[in-house]
Amino acid sequence: MIIVLKSSATDEDLKHLTEGLKERGYGVHISKGVEKTIVGAIGAPDSDKELIAQQIETYHFVEKVVPILKPYKMVNIDFRPERSIVKIKDGVEIGGTQIHVMAGPCCIENEEMLLDIAIAVKKAGATILRGGAFKPSTSPYSFQGLEYDGLQMLARVGKETGMAVITEAMAVNDVEVIAAYADIIQIGTRSMQNYPLLKEVGQAKKPVMLKRGMWATIEEWMQAAEYIASHGNLEIILCERGIRTFETYTRNTFDINAIPAAKELSHLPIIGDSAHGTGKWTLVRPVAKAAVAAGADGIMVEVHPHPSHAYKDGFQSLRSDDA
Amino acid sequence: MIIVLKSSATDEDLKHLTEGLKERGYGVHISKGVEKTIVGAIGAPDSDKELIAQQIETYHFVEKVVPILKPYKMVNIDFRPERSIVKIKDGVEIGGTQIHVMAGPCCIENEEMLLDIAIAVKKAGATILRGGAFKPSTSPYSFQGLEYDGLQMLARVGKETGMAVITEAMAVNDVEVIAAYADIIQIGTRSMQNYPLLKEVGQAKKPVMLKRGMWATIEEWMQAAEYIASHGNLEIILCERGIRTFETYTRNTFDINAIPAAKELSHLPIIGDSAHGTGKWTLVRPVAKAAVAAGADGIMVEVHPHPSHAYKDGFQSLRSDDA
Amino acid sequence: MIIVLKSSATDEDLKHLTEGLKERGYGVHISKGVEKTIVGAIGAPDSDKELIAQQIETYHFVEKVVPILKPYKMVNIDFRPERSIVKIKDGVEIGGTQIHVMAGPCCIENEEMLLDIAIAVKKAGATILRGGAFKPSTSPYSFQGLEYDGLQMLARVGKETGMAVITEAMAVNDVEVIAAYADIIQIGTRSMQNYPLLKEVGQAKKPVMLKRGMWATIEEWMQAAEYIASHGNLEIILCERGIRTFETYTRNTFDINAIPAAKELSHLPIIGDSAHGTGKWTLVRPVAKAAVAAGADGIMVEVHPHPSHAYKDGFQSLRSDDA
Amino acid sequence: MIIVLKSSATDEDLKHLTEGLKERGYGVHISKGVEKTIVGAIGAPDSDKELIAQQIETYHFVEKVVPILKPYKMVNIDFRPERSIVKIKDGVEIGGTQIHVMAGPCCIENEEMLLDIAIAVKKAGATILRGGAFKPSTSPYSFQGLEYDGLQMLARVGKETGMAVITEAMAVNDVEVIAAYADIIQIGTRSMQNYPLLKEVGQAKKPVMLKRGMWATIEEWMQAAEYIASHGNLEIILCERGIRTFETYTRNTFDINAIPAAKELSHLPIIGDSAHGTGKWTLVRPVAKAAVAAGADGIMVEVHPHPSHAYKDGFQSLRSDDA
Repeated sequence: MIIVLKSSATDEDLKHLTEGLKERGYGVHISKGVEKTIVGAIGAPDSDKELIAQQIETYHFVEKVVPILKPYKMVNIDFRPERSIVKIKDGVEIGGTQIHVMAGPCCIENEEMLLDIAIAVKKAGATILRGGAFKPSTSPYSFQGLEYDGLQMLARVGKETGMAVITEAMAVNDVEVIAAYADIIQIGTRSMQNYPLLKEVGQAKKPVMLKRGMWATIEEWMQAAEYIASHGNLEIILCERGIRTFETYTRNTFDINAIPAAKELSHLPIIGDSAHGTGKWTLVRPVAKAAVAAGADGIMVEVHPHPSHAYKDGFQSLRSDDA
Repeated sequence: MIIVLKSSATDEDLKHLTEGLKERGYGVHISKGVEKTIVGAIGAPDSDKELIAQQIETYHFVEKVVPILKPYKMVNIDFRPERSIVKIKDGVEIGGTQIHVMAGPCCIENEEMLLDIAIAVKKAGATILRGGAFKPSTSPYSFQGLEYDGLQMLARVGKETGMAVITEAMAVNDVEVIAAYADIIQIGTRSMQNYPLLKEVGQAKKPVMLKRGMWATIEEWMQAAEYIASHGNLEIILCERGIRTFETYTRNTFDINAIPAAKELSHLPIIGDSAHGTGKWTLVRPVAKAAVAAGADGIMVEVHPHPSHAYKDGFQSLRSDDA
Repeated sequence: MIIVLKSSATDEDLKHLTEGLKERGYGVHISKGVEKTIVGAIGAPDSDKELIAQQIETYHFVEKVVPILKPYKMVNIDFRPERSIVKIKDGVEIGGTQIHVMAGPCCIENEEMLLDIAIAVKKAGATILRGGAFKPSTSPYSFQGLEYDGLQMLARVGKETGMAVITEAMAVNDVEVIAAYADIIQIGTRSMQNYPLLKEVGQAKKPVMLKRGMWATIEEWMQAAEYIASHGNLEIILCERGIRTFETYTRNTFDINAIPAAKELSHLPIIGDSAHGTGKWTLVRPVAKAAVAAGADGIMVEVHPHPSHAYKDGFQSLRSDDA
Repeated sequence: MIIVLKSSATDEDLKHLTEGLKERGYGVHISKGVEKTIVGAIGAPDSDKELIAQQIETYHFVEKVVPILKPYKMVNIDFRPERSIVKIKDGVEIGGTQIHVMAGPCCIENEEMLLDIAIAVKKAGATILRGGAFKPSTSPYSFQGLEYDGLQMLARVGKETGMAVITEAMAVNDVEVIAAYADIIQIGTRSMQNYPLLKEVGQAKKPVMLKRGMWATIEEWMQAAEYIASHGNLEIILCERGIRTFETYTRNTFDINAIPAAKELSHLPIIGDSAHGTGKWTLVRPVAKAAVAAGADGIMVEVHPHPSHAYKDGFQSLRSDDA
């Protein structure tokens, strides 16, 4: 890290800082400029750099601390420059030359409807069936999903149609059973920094799709992926699904920059979820195309669970919620 | 809810909409203006209003859906206009006439240091000791806390000094033991929409302090509190701890507006955490004062766990991380 | 507008409100629900709806005011559903079937270099030459542009290469001369709500490209365009150039959603500026492609003014500043 | 500045960079770490650091550029550590020991009403009368202010009541006349980066109150103040008025952190405008108190121009718009 001292820092301050750093095993390099003194510190491999940087920031004579090394290793592009391909099942590999479409209802309501949707989306080119069994609802009074029953429906419909299936895990205690039934375990946006859950799926033997937290910087997203990787699972797919901004016309702002940014920072494949990324069905299609143009390895879309209620829109109507 | 139709909506569209609403038990009221048609829909008590509103938004002839009723009941000011007082222990009541200070280290490192800090902060007026046993670290390579050992140290130091203690629960499986040792269970910012965890603390017999998600609107925060309340626990304290904005000089933007806003929307007491809300120790003090001036029932501050390493700043140095 | 009253509103309050509205020429429609009373108000054509809505929001018995009609007319898609095509010069029409590329240096430094760049970008397919003569610099100590000299160089190089030229107007007093030399007058992000400037270019006889304010909602952007249109100039091109968010890896977040959103709200053509929208030259290309995939009528890119200094990157290196 | 090179940077790249820097008069200092090479560059006093840093960022072997020196000098706390006091008139000094209240209508509608309000707010303790003559309205169809007539009314009412007066300048061409009539020239949030306007008020002989752009970082705000200072006018008062965030319950998020932050970065006094900072009259009072508790030198509030229409709220009702 680089430590910029305030103009008011004394020689005693500098000595205190450098001694403290050396005690913790850091190599130290001092540059005294006319106006500012800058200290470079090269960390001991086993030091808790995050904690030490935070402590140094509290020193009254320190202006700022600039980290130099990226705080993630296994998911870093330098770790595997040839890029990862996540194999889901025979013929379904994410990160290769083929663009994959994940489609299905936000929430599984019954098996018949799920099958109808699966057949329709497969026909339209989708290879992966999505469907919520454990549903994260903003309101405690909303439908919370069919849970285990939904999971079994999803597995059966996947088998029947020959599609791979993906569903979200919200709780540590559900990971094992979801891993048994689904081909991909989804970590939703609200769980991106649910560390017990990340550790758990890090020990699962199934690919994980990690949605970006709607508040998370790209670097924090990479660190969340590193949690999974460092616990043993490198079969990770990233998913950009929109971030929170001041704009109110759309529910989220799909961060198109994050697609090529994630690809220059990490070897992991990436999916674009333009349904949540826009929250407006009229925008889902153009933004999905944009995601692919920007380099996404696939897209996730949501197909309305009540086609008959959705009136003329039928299967085209893509619903927006915040899963 | 109010449904605004597009100018292009036909009579057939309107008929389709109103019939669908009536089927689901809604009372319907149509206003045809010169340029727009507006449909008011009064929901059946048992309907899943969130889901239905989302579905209606996908109709091609609907411009927007405006909810009218607030999506939370038990934590709403209308539910208990006299305001809640959360009793922590004898002499420590949050939400009454006294301002409480919660102070202590971000992370418990050993019992001796915790005791030193506790004695110091008690002397300075704090009534509640905070300390992290299970620590949410952005990096998997950072210290993850002393866990159960830390929890026991906290309980012992609390007893020894006569202070109430608060610590964070990150996992459903830890709630029971935390409830046994701590006086207040903290739900951290990253867990604000961890629904399994909210349900679990909703069944605990201890007060819960719910930090606002750094991405969450005030309304979503209320709905998260409603999860806890609707599962049986109304001993809830809100805590504003800063939100994510474009500003980079500070780690978060402390949302001072949220203090009086939460008090006009809800009967729950509220704490201001200016350490995380600013992320800069020089700003902690003035922003804590501001929180109290705006109506907060107390403040939470972080005291550096390594006073000797923190050089001259000693106990004044307030550290900033993102817990 | 729709006015939602608080539960505590009395009959007297309601009477006061409705009488006030009627005095101002509004038609009023009351819906009394079990929990809430809702008042619909249809405005007199000549009323200042923005001001009246703001006043009503201050009434102590009003919970919220929801506007129904869009606050812009001439740039609204309803005004000209067949979409606008802005003719720049023979063979250069924005909004038609052809995608146009606007390229050139951020800042004009001398005529020779501008000509070199113009020849290079024309060869690469660009039809419009951009170049800053009046430069909005964040710092007062940075280069402020060649001003009138730069403008004349731009005009000469445009003529020599047969390209149309675009440059930014920052001051009301410069609009006339810029309109005389340039084919398109650019309004920069910082000037999106500079109303005297918008009125001035509204009276100019040249097409205007209106960049979105980095803070502005899509609706505010439309209202800014309406300023230009309502002062007499409907030859407007919108330009999405990124908004301010919490993400720090990129300088701005290119709002890809805004491309199809602007096209469903307005008949105006739209350009995507991925240089400013990302602020990172490695991301400019994929995000420009994404903009076109999402429906943009063209893109704007920035070509480095010092190709020799930019080392091997040569003309590929796209610079990022915040113009 | 500090330049962090990518791991892939070659010796040739490094040589190219250092030679380029030396050519431009920079002193260069190289630190080769195990994983990264870092170049420190100390700029020649007359170099355009902003431009050079941006160019270097485009080099393909550069990971990031970290500026070290603050990009503003005259408004920096180091320039005048004893803090500035801006004298408005006899007995009205901002930045001293007294807290000042600026109050008045958003928009001047007629002289009688302005006088009524002035008398009322003076009685309540205000020393400075605010009133909009040139009004920045989001919609071109809204009232644009009484302009010169309003300005004269304001001056007359100020004289009659013995209050200092403040009003906004939106256009370069109006600055001279506003400086002749008003005691403080206000630069509104939308104009914070209107550089021609900043240069103009930099040459005026009257104090200037610079509102923060609703999108602007604290550092950009300081640079905007530097524009005014560097053109000759150091009689500057800062004004925090809320920033754009994802929160929708309030119109803006009042950035309370910015009050002490501005005071640690700059010697200029600062005012808190909680009317715009919240956009909700019920929150104006607690947030104004908070601003003062955080160290503000005064507050600005808006008094409703139609007390009779505002029903019982009378002078208490504080209106929210986005001026």
